[in-house]
Order: sequence, then C-alpha cells, then structure tokens
Amino acid sequence: MEKIVVSIVMGSDSDLPIMEEAAKILEQLGVGYELDIVSAHRTPEKLFDYAKNAHTRGIQVIIAGAGGAAHLPGMIASLSPLPVIGVPVKSSNSIDGWDSVLSILQMPGGVPVATVALNGAKNAGILAAQIVSTASKETQDAIIAYKQTLQEQVLEKSARVRR
Amino acid sequence: MEKIVVSIVMGSDSDLPIMEEAAKILEQLGVGYELDIVSAHRTPEKLFDYAKNAHTRGIQVIIAGAGGAAHLPGMIASLSPLPVIGVPVKSSNSIDGWDSVLSILQMPGGVPVATVALNGAKNAGILAAQIVSTASKETQDAIIAYKQTLQEQVLEKSARVRR
Amino acid sequence: MEKIVVSIVMGSDSDLPIMEEAAKILEQLGVGYELDIVSAHRTPEKLFDYAKNAHTRGIQVIIAGAGGAAHLPGMIASLSPLPVIGVPVKSSNSIDGWDSVLSILQMPGGVPVATVALNGAKNAGILAAQIVSTASKETQDAIIAYKQTLQEQVLEKSARVRR
Amino acid sequence: MEKIVVSIVMGSDSDLPIMEEAAKILEQLGVGYELDIVSAHRTPEKLFDYAKNAHTRGIQVIIAGAGGAAHLPGMIASLSPLPVIGVPVKSSNSIDGWDSVLSILQMPGGVPVATVALNGAKNAGILAAQIVSTASKETQDAIIAYKQTLQEQVLEKSARVRR
Amino acid sequence: MEKIVVSIVMGSDSDLPIMEEAAKILEQLGVGYELDIVSAHRTPEKLFDYAKNAHTRGIQVIIAGAGGAAHLPGMIASLSPLPVIGVPVKSSNSIDGWDSVLSILQMPGGVPVATVALNGAKNAGILAAQIVSTASKETQDAIIAYKQTLQEQVLEKSARVRR
Amino acid sequence: MEKIVVSIVMGSDSDLPIMEEAAKILEQLGVGYELDIVSAHRTPEKLFDYAKNAHTRGIQVIIAGAGGAAHLPGMIASLSPLPVIGVPVKSSNSIDGWDSVLSILQMPGGVPVATVALNGAKNAGILAAQIVSTASKETQDAIIAYKQTLQEQVLEKSARVRR
Amino acid sequence: MEKIVVSIVMGSDSDLPIMEEAAKILEQLGVGYELDIVSAHRTPEKLFDYAKNAHTRGIQVIIAGAGGAAHLPGMIASLSPLPVIGVPVKSSNSIDGWDSVLSILQMPGGVPVATVALNGAKNAGILAAQIVSTASKETQDAIIAYKQTLQEQVLEKSARVRR
Amino acid sequence: MEKIVVSIVMGSDSDLPIMEEAAKILEQLGVGYELDIVSAHRTPEKLFDYAKNAHTRGIQVIIAGAGGAAHLPGMIASLSPLPVIGVPVKSSNSIDGWDSVLSILQMPGGVPVATVALNGAKNAGILAAQIVSTASKETQDAIIAYKQTLQEQVLEKSARVRR
Repeated sequence: MEKIVVSIVMGSDSDLPIMEEAAKILEQLGVGYELDIVSAHRTPEKLFDYAKNAHTRGIQVIIAGAGGAAHLPGMIASLSPLPVIGVPVKSSNSIDGWDSVLSILQMPGGVPVATVALNGAKNAGILAAQIVSTASKETQDAIIAYKQTLQEQVLEKSARVRR
Repeated sequence: MEKIVVSIVMGSDSDLPIMEEAAKILEQLGVGYELDIVSAHRTPEKLFDYAKNAHTRGIQVIIAGAGGAAHLPGMIASLSPLPVIGVPVKSSNSIDGWDSVLSILQMPGGVPVATVALNGAKNAGILAAQIVSTASKETQDAIIAYKQTLQEQVLEKSARVRR
Repeated sequence: MEKIVVSIVMGSDSDLPIMEEAAKILEQLGVGYELDIVSAHRTPEKLFDYAKNAHTRGIQVIIAGAGGAAHLPGMIASLSPLPVIGVPVKSSNSIDGWDSVLSILQMPGGVPVATVALNGAKNAGILAAQIVSTASKETQDAIIAYKQTLQEQVLEKSARVRR
Repeated sequence: MEKIVVSIVMGSDSDLPIMEEAAKILEQLGVGYELDIVSAHRTPEKLFDYAKNAHTRGIQVIIAGAGGAAHLPGMIASLSPLPVIGVPVKSSNSIDGWDSVLSILQMPGGVPVATVALNGAKNAGILAAQIVSTASKETQDAIIAYKQTLQEQVLEKSARVRR
Repeated sequence: MEKIVVSIVMGSDSDLPIMEEAAKILEQLGVGYELDIVSAHRTPEKLFDYAKNAHTRGIQVIIAGAGGAAHLPGMIASLSPLPVIGVPVKSSNSIDGWDSVLSILQMPGGVPVATVALNGAKNAGILAAQIVSTASKETQDAIIAYKQTLQEQVLEKSARVRR
Repeated sequence: MEKIVVSIVMGSDSDLPIMEEAAKILEQLGVGYELDIVSAHRTPEKLFDYAKNAHTRGIQVIIAGAGGAAHLPGMIASLSPLPVIGVPVKSSNSIDGWDSVLSILQMPGGVPVATVALNGAKNAGILAAQIVSTASKETQDAIIAYKQTLQEQVLEKSARVRR
Repeated sequence: MEKIVVSIVMGSDSDLPIMEEAAKILEQLGVGYELDIVSAHRTPEKLFDYAKNAHTRGIQVIIAGAGGAAHLPGMIASLSPLPVIGVPVKSSNSIDGWDSVLSILQMPGGVPVATVALNGAKNAGILAAQIVSTASKETQDAIIAYKQTLQEQVLEKSARVRR
Repeated sequence: MEKIVVSIVMGSDSDLPIMEEAAKILEQLGVGYELDIVSAHRTPEKLFDYAKNAHTRGIQVIIAGAGGAAHLPGMIASLSPLPVIGVPVKSSNSIDGWDSVLSILQMPGGVPVATVALNGAKNAGILAAQIVSTASKETQDAIIAYKQTLQEQVLEKSARVRR
C-alpha cells in the first residue's frame, strides 16, 4: 500500500460525490491519500488541529473542496506550510458557482490557494500527483502515461468521427 | 465613557479608511466600541482567541471588514455566538468587489453573517447600534433621532433644488 | 408561550417555502415570532403601517424576504428603527438571484439591511436569535448549544467518511 | 410657460448632474417639468405623499433616478397610477451599476417601471416627451424634428470622416 | 370593440407564450391592441415599414419583445416617434438573459426604449395602458382599480398566512 | 491604389479612435478600405441603403463597430449577404463593455456576426484581410509575413528579458 | 461532390451534437466541409500539425468549437493564416457559458478569432459560407436565397399569428 | 547560487511588472528561478519547445502569467507533465479581468492549471516554493519563517491601531 501523502478534505458530505473524483484519479496514478470532512464554519477547532499538523504527519499536499462562501481551502492555507489545492464546489443555493470560485481564488498576497475549475476535483487529484511527482520519478512516469492515454482516447474518437 | 459593546476588526490596515466610518457613527450614536486588526489568513491564532472570547468580554456585536477572498467575518461567525456584521471591502486587485461580497454573504446554513453593502462600514455601525438598541431605550432614541436628521437633510436639499 | 420578538414578513406567498426556514429555527431556539405577508409594491400602505409601528409592539428584530427588485427589506429599514434582516429570494424570472441580492444588499449610507445568503432564511432566523441573545442569556445558551450540535453532526459524518 | 406634466425626482442631490439631462431635453422639446429630491430611504413619508398625489396635480409622467439599491422608482410605481420612468444612476460604491440597474428593472408582475440605460436621464426625458406626445400633436412634431436633427448631425460627421 | 392603440410585436413565434401576457392584461384593462411577428434580423424590410408607419395608423404605444442580441425594440425606437416598450425575453441559448436585457436597455442617448423586467410582458402591457391613460380617464380608472385588486389579493393571502 | 474591398463603419465618431486601428492594419496588409459613420439608431435609412448595396459595390467584408446596445453590426448582417465583423466598443456609460459584447455576439440562428474582442478593431482588420486572403495569394502572404513579425517581436523581447 | 474548403473541428466528441449544426447548414448551402476532433489540451501535437497545414490542403476557413477554458480556436488562429471561426460551447461544469465565450472572444491584438454566439454552430457555418462566397458567386447566391427563406418563414408565422 | 527549479514565463512584456512579484518572493525564499517571455499566440513554436522540454531541464514547477483570452498556462499544462501555476493578469481591454481568470481556471478534466488570484504573481511564487518544499526541508523552513513574518507584521499593525 502507498504511503499517504495527499489529504483530501471537504466542508460537507454533500461535496463527496464531487470530491471522490480526486480520490479515484490519485488511486489510478498510484498516489496514497486520505479522505475526511472538515468544516471551516462548523468544526473550526478540528480545522485548526488538522491544518496545523498535516505536514508533521507526512502529508505533502492538501486538497480542500467547499461551496458557497468557501473558506476551508483558504483557512487551511493560512495555517499550513503545505501547498493547498482548492476545489470550488457548485452547491445548491450557490449563485451559479461564482461564490465558491471567488472565495477560493481571490486569496490575499502571502497565502496562495491553487484553485482548479468549478467542480474540478479530478484535476485537483492530478495536480496533487504532479506536485508529488516533482520528487518522484515513478509518479511523473504515471502522469506522462496518463497524458498519453488522454491523447489516445481523443485520437480514437477522432478516427470514429472522421469515418 | 461608554462601555465597549461593539468590536470592530479588519483584515488589514489598508481597510482602515473604510472601516473608520463604522467607528465614527458609533461614536455619534453614543455606543462604545474598540478597533483592531485581525487577519484570518495571517494571524489565524489571534483570530481564534479573539472570536472564542469576545462574548465573554462583554462584547455584544462584532463588525468585521475584509476584501478579496474575505474569510474574516465568516470565521468569526463560526467561532462566536455573537451576531457578526460583515463589511465587504473593495480592495485593490479585487474583481470589482464581487469577491468580497460573495465570500462574506454566501455563508452556509447555520452560520450567518449580517452583510452590508460594498464598503458600507457606516451602515455596519448603524446596524450594530440597532442591535444594541434592542435592549437600550437610549440607543433606540439616538437611532430615531439620527433617522430624523437624515430626513431633514434631504428635505433641506429638496428645498434648495426646487428653488 | 414565548413573547413575540421577531417579525417575519415576505413579499409574496410564493416566498413562504423559503421563509418558513426562519420560523422553524426560531422555534427550535425558543424565540417567539410572527409571520405575515407584506408587499412593498402591492400593499404599500400596509408596509407603512407595519414598519412604522413594529417597534412599538415589542418587536425587536424584523426579517424580510423578497425576490427580484426586492424593495421590502430596504423600505422597512427606512421606516423602522429596528434592525432589519433581508433574505434575497431566488424567484422565478429572477436573473440568477443577482437582482434580489443586489437590491437588498446595496443600501445607501444611513439605512442598513443585514443581508444573508440567497434563500438563506434559516440563517436569517439564527441571526435574529443572535440579536435577541445580546440581551438574553437563555437565547445565547441556545445558540451555543446549537453550534455544538452543528459540530457534532459534522464530526459524526467525518467518522463515517473515514471508515 | 408650459404646464408642468412631467415630474423629475431623484434620491439624492448627488444624482443631480446626471438627472439634469432629463430636464434639459424636456425644455428643448417644449414639455413642462418640475424637479425635486425625494429619498425612498431617508424621506419615506414625503415619498408617500408625493407618489399618492402626483396624478391629482396634473402630472402625467414621473421620472425617478436613483443609485445602488434603488427603490425610489419602484416605490413610486407602487403608489401612483402614472407611468414611471426609472433612471439607474451609477453612484460611487455601486457595483459597476449592476445594483441600480437590477433593482429598478426587475419589478414584479403588476408594477412596471420603464427603465432606461445606466445614467440615461436624457433618454428618460425623451421617453417622457414621447408619452406626453401620445396626446399632443405638438410634442410629437417636436420629437420627429428632434430625431431629424440627430440624423443630420450623424450625416454631417459622416461627411467629415469620409473626407 | 376598442380602438387599437397598442401594437405588440415579437421577433419570433417562440416568444409568443411570454408576449401573450401583454395582450391578456391589455384586454383586462380595456385597451385595444394588435399582435404580430416582426423580426429585425429576418424581416428587416417589414421592420422598416412597420416602424415608420405605426404612428400614422393610430398606434400610440409599441411593445416589442425579443431575446438574445435583441435589436427589435431599439430599431423600432430608431424609426418611430412613438414610445417603445422593450421586453427582454430569456430565449434558449441566451446567456442567462443578460444578452436580451443589455441589448434592449443600454440604448444610446437620443433613442430610448422603456425596458421592463426579463420576460416581463405583463408589466409591458400595464405600462402601455398607463401611457394610454395619460389621456384617458377611463383607462386610468381601470389601472387604479387593477392596483386595488393586487392589494386585496395580497391582503387575503396575508390573512390566510396569519391564521 | 488598392481596390476598396473592406468597408469600415461605426455608430458614432466617438468610436473613431478605436476603429482607426482596423484601417491602419488593413493599410499595412495592403488591403483597400473605406471608412464611414452609419448609426443604426440615428440614421436608420442610411443603414438600410448602405447594407443593402455594399456587396453590389464590390465590398467583400464589412467591419462594424458600436458600443452599448450595439445594433449596427447585427442590422447590417441582417440586410447584407457579406460577412460582417463586429467590434464591441467600450463606450462611456457602457456597463463595463458587457452590453456591447453581448448585443453583438449573441445573434440569433441565421444571421451571424463575426465578433472580435472588446475594442478589438485591429483584430477586425486582420480578420477582414484573412477573409480577403481566401481568394488572394498576395494577401495571404502578407498575413503570413505579419505573423512572422509578431513572432520576431516577442522573441526579441524574450531575449531582452532573459538578459 | 463539392471540394472541401471548410474544416470543422471540436475539442471533444461531446461537442458533436452542437457542432453538427455547422455541417448541416454548409451542406444546405452547397459548401464542402470536413469534420474532426482536435483537442488543444489532449492532442497538442495533432493541433500543431492540423493548424500549420490546413491552408496548404486547400482549406479556406476553419470552424473550431470548444467549451470551458476553450483554447482550440485561439491556438489554431495562432498557427494558421486562415480565418478561424470560434464557437463557444456551453459544456457541463461551464460557468453558464461565460468561460467558453470569454476565452474564445478576448484574443490579443494580432490573432483574431471570429466568435459567434454561445452554441452558435449554425451561424458559424453560415459565416464560413459567407467567407467562401466572397470569391464564389454561386455561394453568394445560395446565401441570398437562404436569407430569403428566413424572411418567408417569419412572414408566414406572422400571418398565422395575426389570424 | 541556487539551482533553477522554477520557470516563470509570461505572454507579453507588458505582464512583467506584475510577474516580477513571483521572482522577488522566490528570491526571498531562496528558490532558484528563470524568467522568460513565451506567447501562446505569437510564438506557438517556442511554446511547444519550451513546454515539452522544461521537465528534462530540471525545472520542477512552471509559473505562467497571461491576460485576456489567456491560453499560455493551459497550453503549457497540455504539453508538460509538471505542475503549472497560472496567473491571470488584468491587461488593458480585459473585461475587468474575468476573461483572464476564466480562461486559465476552467481547464477541462485531465489538464489542471493551479490558478491564483487576479494579478496574484506573488502568491504564484509562494505556491511554487511550497511545491518545491514538499521535497526540501530547507524551503519548508523558509516558508514557515515567512508565514511567521506575515503574522508579526499584522500584530505590529494591530498594536499601532489599538493605541
């Protein structure tokens, strides 16, 4: 079994169907991960403990997904030295996703969050693997192979469309 | 001197020119206040201490102003039982203020922030006084008198324009 | 039975399914409320009577919900010294809710409306209770207990997800 | 002197530089008007008196300009049987004018406001004259002549550019 | 039968379900109307004939509905001296209705279009009747009675909700 | 002198500083053009004559620039069989350019306008030349050479930055 | 069979239902075309080959459709001297289509993309035919006839509505 | 001197004043970098060479800044296995920065770009250092120290404001 180096957290279990995409692609790329629920607004103490200590537990990258006024990724970034990837989730009552996107993306100078597309948990997983791969030839090879697969799938579809 | 019942905090000293409007109107309405800088992203520990303890120090209402991905009001609301008023500040590099507005307004169910207009610190001060006035006849009278003044100013301008 | 201290009004009975959330949470927190329909655009006289007199009837906080060009919360705030909480409702033909949000939030200096999230009636109820709690130890305890429950629910879900 | 048939009101004297454009074009088109300040939020009683009685004073059309959460045109439309023209004013602290536009335009079924472009007071004046002209051959002739002038001005500029 | 004084046109028969609301309320208010399809983009010649001659046929007000890059109301306003009411229609492939709203509302100085809310054909009908009523006591009475009905319906619903 | 094959028109002479960029690049690419002012809203008759006849005068492409509720490009496209390039101009009182962009871009099925970026008159000129170049080897060579120049300029700047 | 002069490409086979509209109208207008899948992000090498060589294969116009952060049309425009028509596709997880529209439309000076409406593949086809028609009397006649049909369809619907 | 592990590229030298912030903070954190101009639209061949080979030259992270229809970060991400950080630059003629933000953020599944705030080059530099730090205790210590400094600066300002 792989060592856990990526930690995936989300603000609510309603984000799980979206955030599982990050887990799936990490599994496919052979990168160890954990999955948990941490709510910035409902469990602020847990947020603090979690974010202060993740890097001491061997975690290398954090993926945090949240919707609406999404404060989870930014607050983790405030407390942890690790790179934090934010996934804006388009929750019900969101204003078309703009709230999630802007409250994750527009972080002040000094505290970055690596934001991916709305509901882009899969890309968050790939990005986490790319970060891990900066010190792992094995993971970089997995990413290069994955990109190769993407290409082949499109070429196949292209062949089908041209016929 | 009035007892301090309103606490005004902001994420950065660049928000001070906006947020002072809250202080001024509270002074005018005879409501005691304090003023401080607490950054959700740069001083998360201070944020925690501040928000957990404000209500035990006699504070009745918190006014929190912040710009961009503004997490300060929401994180205080997460940690304090007090009513929290959020002031979206239009900072430089803000996307026309939309980021501040949405990341303060769109709080999830369970954790409200009473949001006022973009740069609306003056209204935040009045709202805080109105909250205080629910248990203070004196403050309510001050608010009624203030509204009377607003009306008279407009009527005066009306008279001038009609001439 | 509790004394009625919160008044919930809405512009149309089509807002009722949203606005009932405010009533439910106030009930749960032990705060007395009333519920009525007052349309700024269709019953302006009733609006005037209602808003001018609410504070003389013992009402401490007003919650007003409306959609589209939502003038109800702002007009009540113009006429009453009480704190007014505005709930932007995403009505049919609304432009994604932006109209409701902006016409409630962007009040001019002097006349604040405490705006909550789009369709955020539940949070309006909690905010009203928080305002009441500034002079009621009992209500503050209810709010602290409620926040505790929120936390426990998330921790439970967290435990389930981690398994 | 012409009979006063158009009433121009605005929420604040800061709207005057914009709203004067309506007065100027009405003068040019020979339509009598009055000019006043009526604030929905600061002088609600005056608003009521004004709007309830305008049609009994011989006013045929009302032009109302306001910025931010602009409630003046809609509240007048709620109280008066007259056609109401709304001018969204781009005030300071407005969110790019979107707030003024949406809170004037998006009126609910039953209570129309004839909205013109952001800061479009000149067009409000022309529209008022067009309304008056439905029962005044003289005013219709003035409008037809005005449109002729517009055309000639463009043709002149066209000639200059082509040279 | 009433004299036809209001002309309702739309860019496409797919706008008919929306635009019929204008016809219905005019009927209810006793104002004579006609209904037709005129496409700015597909029948430009018909547009020209129609718009140049409407006022010579006794038409007093034009209601024009269109979606997307909606040029019909503005082009009619360019060609006719009559007041033109524009109804932004939220067509399929519209970008949330913003395109229709902005391309009708933001007319240049000199050529106003009286814009109503997105899909607000009913309000367009009422506004047309209000314009007609500036020279018709009978129609003004119908409008006053209509407003009375609106009020009574809300008061009834209010009574039901309060029970 | 080159044959005039591109016609550049704009709604107002205030658009000239922007629209001249189209003329400049056409000159540079050796494509003949004319320049005129045609206002959809102020000179509708001229618009009709112009658009109906352009293709009979040897014009191959039309570039039309306009701001606000920009109807000029779409109305020309409605009347002419030629390809029409639309340039959204960010005029004063425009709502950040969104109005110009959407009222040019969102044309209904059957009547395309080739829209370029906000204030993108230079690109409109290049696009016109590209269209001309589909039947002119000479113009295509000019375009290929122009692209080469763009590349060299960037490479030069790159060299300077790297030093 | 017609010579292939228009090349239609799209970023993903999920864009096919939209992009087929371009093929259909080209067929109807008698203009030869090809159809393929080329992904800027998944098959960048194919994109390079395709775009560098299209004009040497006799292609005169390229239609490229893509959604989200849509880079396909712009990258082809960067590599090819041909006119490139971009179709913003409203894909799932798009933010209401704004991402596709802006990332195709807002090209920098020097590299135009002729953008059509959101999902406007049909108009892309017509525009391509119009470009071809600048050197083909036959295609121009087909376009004039097509516009005639559009007009007749509307007039027929008009007749039906008026009855 | 530090080994070069971060590569900063931008689409135009007009982006340099913004993008230099990334260089400055990397210098401060002791992380080696290079700086270059690579335009997706003007030097596509250079883009290809650069992106295909960066990881073979020892580069671990790429920072790419661009404005308008910003394709540079996404195209690099398409061609390189490395983590790519995108900086949306608010260029002139940008539509308030929305175009840059959306065309960098909204990448399709399979090809992530780690997006930071509008003009957020400083945060891009910190994020790059955080990525490097996942395999460098020294860099992680520098980041922890940097965060400590941020905190101290705010506490100092707080002390000054409270006095």
